[in-house]
Amino acid sequence: MRDNQQQQRQQVRQKKDNSTKERRTYNRTGSHNQRGRRNGAVRRKPSSVKIIPLGGLGQIGMNITAFECNNQILVVDCGLAFPDEDMLGIDLVIPDVTYLKENAKKIRGLVITHGHEDHIGAIPYIEKELNMPIYATKLTMALIDNKLKEHGISEQVQKNVVSHGDKVKLGIFEVEFIKTNHSIADAAALAITTPAGVIIHTGDFKIDHTPLFGEAIDLAKFAELGSKGVLALMADSTNVERQGYTLSEKNVGKRLDGIFAEHLKGRMIIATFASNVDRVQHIINSAHKYGRKVAVEGRSMVNIITTASELGYLKIPKNTLIETDQIKNYPDDQIVLITTGSQGEQMAALSRMANSTHRKVSIVPSDTIIFSSSPIPGNEKNISKIMNELAIKGAKVVFQDTHVSGHACREEIRLIYALTKPKYAIPVHGEYRHLMRHKELAIEMGIPKENTFVLAEGDVLELNKRQGKVTGKVQAGGILVDGLGVGDVGNIVLNDRKMLSQNGLIIATVTLQRHGRQILAGPDIVSRGFVYVRESESLMEGAREVALAAVEECMERNISDWARIKNSIKEALSNYIWKNTKRNPMILPIITEV
Amino acid sequence: MRDNQQQQRQQVRQKKDNSTKERRTYNRTGSHNQRGRRNGAVRRKPSSVKIIPLGGLGQIGMNITAFECNNQILVVDCGLAFPDEDMLGIDLVIPDVTYLKENAKKIRGLVITHGHEDHIGAIPYIEKELNMPIYATKLTMALIDNKLKEHGISEQVQKNVVSHGDKVKLGIFEVEFIKTNHSIADAAALAITTPAGVIIHTGDFKIDHTPLFGEAIDLAKFAELGSKGVLALMADSTNVERQGYTLSEKNVGKRLDGIFAEHLKGRMIIATFASNVDRVQHIINSAHKYGRKVAVEGRSMVNIITTASELGYLKIPKNTLIETDQIKNYPDDQIVLITTGSQGEQMAALSRMANSTHRKVSIVPSDTIIFSSSPIPGNEKNISKIMNELAIKGAKVVFQDTHVSGHACREEIRLIYALTKPKYAIPVHGEYRHLMRHKELAIEMGIPKENTFVLAEGDVLELNKRQGKVTGKVQAGGILVDGLGVGDVGNIVLNDRKMLSQNGLIIATVTLQRHGRQILAGPDIVSRGFVYVRESESLMEGAREVALAAVEECMERNISDWARIKNSIKEALSNYIWKNTKRNPMILPIITEV
Repeated sequence: MRDNQQQQRQQVRQKKDNSTKERRTYNRTGSHNQRGRRNGAVRRKPSSVKIIPLGGLGQIGMNITAFECNNQILVVDCGLAFPDEDMLGIDLVIPDVTYLKENAKKIRGLVITHGHEDHIGAIPYIEKELNMPIYATKLTMALIDNKLKEHGISEQVQKNVVSHGDKVKLGIFEVEFIKTNHSIADAAALAITTPAGVIIHTGDFKIDHTPLFGEAIDLAKFAELGSKGVLALMADSTNVERQGYTLSEKNVGKRLDGIFAEHLKGRMIIATFASNVDRVQHIINSAHKYGRKVAVEGRSMVNIITTASELGYLKIPKNTLIETDQIKNYPDDQIVLITTGSQGEQMAALSRMANSTHRKVSIVPSDTIIFSSSPIPGNEKNISKIMNELAIKGAKVVFQDTHVSGHACREEIRLIYALTKPKYAIPVHGEYRHLMRHKELAIEMGIPKENTFVLAEGDVLELNKRQGKVTGKVQAGGILVDGLGVGDVGNIVLNDRKMLSQNGLIIATVTLQRHGRQILAGPDIVSRGFVYVRESESLMEGAREVALAAVEECMERNISDWARIKNSIKEALSNYIWKNTKRNPMILPIITEV
Repeated sequence: MRDNQQQQRQQVRQKKDNSTKERRTYNRTGSHNQRGRRNGAVRRKPSSVKIIPLGGLGQIGMNITAFECNNQILVVDCGLAFPDEDMLGIDLVIPDVTYLKENAKKIRGLVITHGHEDHIGAIPYIEKELNMPIYATKLTMALIDNKLKEHGISEQVQKNVVSHGDKVKLGIFEVEFIKTNHSIADAAALAITTPAGVIIHTGDFKIDHTPLFGEAIDLAKFAELGSKGVLALMADSTNVERQGYTLSEKNVGKRLDGIFAEHLKGRMIIATFASNVDRVQHIINSAHKYGRKVAVEGRSMVNIITTASELGYLKIPKNTLIETDQIKNYPDDQIVLITTGSQGEQMAALSRMANSTHRKVSIVPSDTIIFSSSPIPGNEKNISKIMNELAIKGAKVVFQDTHVSGHACREEIRLIYALTKPKYAIPVHGEYRHLMRHKELAIEMGIPKENTFVLAEGDVLELNKRQGKVTGKVQAGGILVDGLGVGDVGNIVLNDRKMLSQNGLIIATVTLQRHGRQILAGPDIVSRGFVYVRESESLMEGAREVALAAVEECMERNISDWARIKNSIKEALSNYIWKNTKRNPMILPIITEV
């Protein structure tokens, strides 16, 4: 309640600030009107808001942003990133939220734009430490809750389900959820009202005037906010390199219908993103229309279909869904199998079918396999491998025109700028070059160059009606999760893994007499990941001799410092191995004293 | 000479066979005319030719095919493959030519279609063992010779330079080199006349009616061969999934000119495939036209430009080429830098510029960097990383419409079928699903299904005028090259590398009393690539205790078999580590007896 009063006072103050600001802005850009200007308005320092991206900039993944104003913090999204190729053995990456931990008392809430992993995946890890109340739309919250349950912390987290159009007061902040289109249902953009002005965060979005199901994006709301005045726009940069518009989901719908009509014989196996509920709905509808039963494979697909249909996001006609076990009870031309694995993930259902390791489904030549997806960069080769395996089994693979992106292309991003007319532009959700291209686009749309900000993770951007400036830097970055370990694997460990992966290792063990100069045993040479030992006996025997000579020399020279002996063995072996093989295995001398 | 006479006799016999065959074919397909039918022709077993792909099928890379007839062998191409992602630490893969080694005396020559790595890269390795006379066009041979020189075997290999239109007699075979278009100059298709009929091998090709330089593909020759009768067509499958035609190199030319015209300020840095000589020529011409000097970076780029200009394939206007050192002596808008690294290769020049580790070139914001290339599948992420690094440095990155493929799309492949009218179709140069799509296309073009062959490496396909059949299998596959080692790394070593790369390793060393039951030292635990040891002291101390307990139990139970003691340590540690970390490092117990 106190927050409410404070908020109202704030709003009054804000109006005055608005008038001051708008005059200034007019003078600079010539594009704002002078509505609300009052004579004799007191010039005072306008309220500022800090925008602190703790992840998600310069990469696609791990989205999390803190908004800070009057010692209150609002957090938007809390995603994970999938490991880069050079993060060997790492399962996932979560954001470093040291800054939030240090300011935990200021946090008023965690607001989520949509239910993709790069926006919700780190929630269970972070909530274990921060336990923020969460605000999200229904499906998004259900997906979050699935995660919280897996981590056994669902009970202790406060979950607030909101609808599009709802306004939520979180301390000094007011957050309005705006309907958008994306490749998952229930996505929202956020209009965050702060004492410094309104910030629009688009989340991940596209403009789909003809979505297969549900409403189109609420463009009127963006226009309304624009006419009232928007301080800053933080918009999705993913597809900024693509000209024009992203195609409507309806195009995929037509194409899938066409494929169903063409392939009346044999089973249809369709791989798509589990979270693309509308796509799944369309597949189910087409299956129903063509008299096919639908089975579902893959844990995440089963989970999301269960969750989405429980919540009414997915309408499954009676007697349509069957268990995979039941497939054999129907003729092939009455079967559709929806499966995970469209990205070529090695452990996913489709991959196991392709490799004949799936317990229930074997690919046969009459199968038609549709990839209703596009490759996420980096997955191309794995997808290609699976397509080849499927082709070897005689199945027909279809992947052309069977997917549209969930992200806005250049013209859509332009439209959002045109509607919202922000003072500041802060490109988000993209690799660095996407952010830079987005910045160019914002400038083309009339945002002064000095009002566009390509931020790095940890940057503290301070905005008010008069100016925007990066005023500081907080700790930020990725924390590696490997099994149960969160943060116990870092660069040294990764470098070791890399070295081991490229050339393997050679271990030289030697047992020395305590306080003496006698070699009691060894050196013995053991290698892993280096060469076939049986075919390289003379090489290994040579290595033993080289190591022995190195140790003997140390003994003769009265060197008893283990570090020096080890170095000596390492150098001798390293030279020997390089000379004979042009390889650089890790060399690990181990000394035991008895 | 004897070969010649034999050849002529063969040709006579062949004519008779032709007549027999064509009657039969007519009956079967209704599409061949009866020209050449003679009454009373003696029916005898027609000559057969064996086609044995030893590499290059089911993958793009490592192309090599043997043609065998009357105990004579002709080899076409001898390429390498780049290692798959799971071939950790491997440098390259060469074909297993055991079959050729066992039949070395039968080999009449090695004919090369063009100078790309996947067609010539294994030559030095294979020539060390087989020393076949090589036949190739001028540029192709020069690129091969560069490799032979690097391996110090140029002198001992017989090199025969041929021109398009040349016919070469190689024992029983006659090989005609036919001009084609591809992304490297001097590419040739081969018409291989054998006693069993003419086989056309397209090599890698596209149809470019308007190449930037040089002649268009010799379609008339394909038509001429077709009208005389073609036994089999082995055609490039790379782009068979793409509809229509591959765009002409002229499109890239126009686009590059446009970029030059748009960017009159700042340096131009253009990354492309070193071997794309025509592209390089066009860049040089545009540079000259716009008053820019050209510097060249990257070893392979320097090598090919040197070789190509020495041979007259590249015409460089006087005073155009400068050393990279001289760049600083010219204003930025008078500089073009052509560089390697368009695939994001970590060690290539462009990558070093992007990472600020290039000794001579630093990226500045006024630079325009053009990727005149498209990503080879698997390289997308590395390319993206470099583009981001360049963007962070403020440079402009251009990559759209700056490249066309060197491979024929569906309509071009169809045209080659229409012109050559082969009896048999053998899709080559593609992953398995490309070969399958190509087979479908061949059937659409009127080749009977039973006359189309999707082969696997090592298959022996026997063709004659009457029938084609896979009649055997010879040893084939890839041999891994790692440093100086050829074939000394196999699955066991690769599996070890993979395991090490994912979870690192834990070594437990223990010193036992010889013939006794006393532990003299240890167990000591050493780990690499597992966790930060300093932050995991209690975990490692626990591991030591678990290992000690396992050894002590063995001692108490009087177990002295090292294998059993090791197993016991391994199992105990493995359980302990999994329970505490959910990780599976390699566990390596080492026992020493003193």
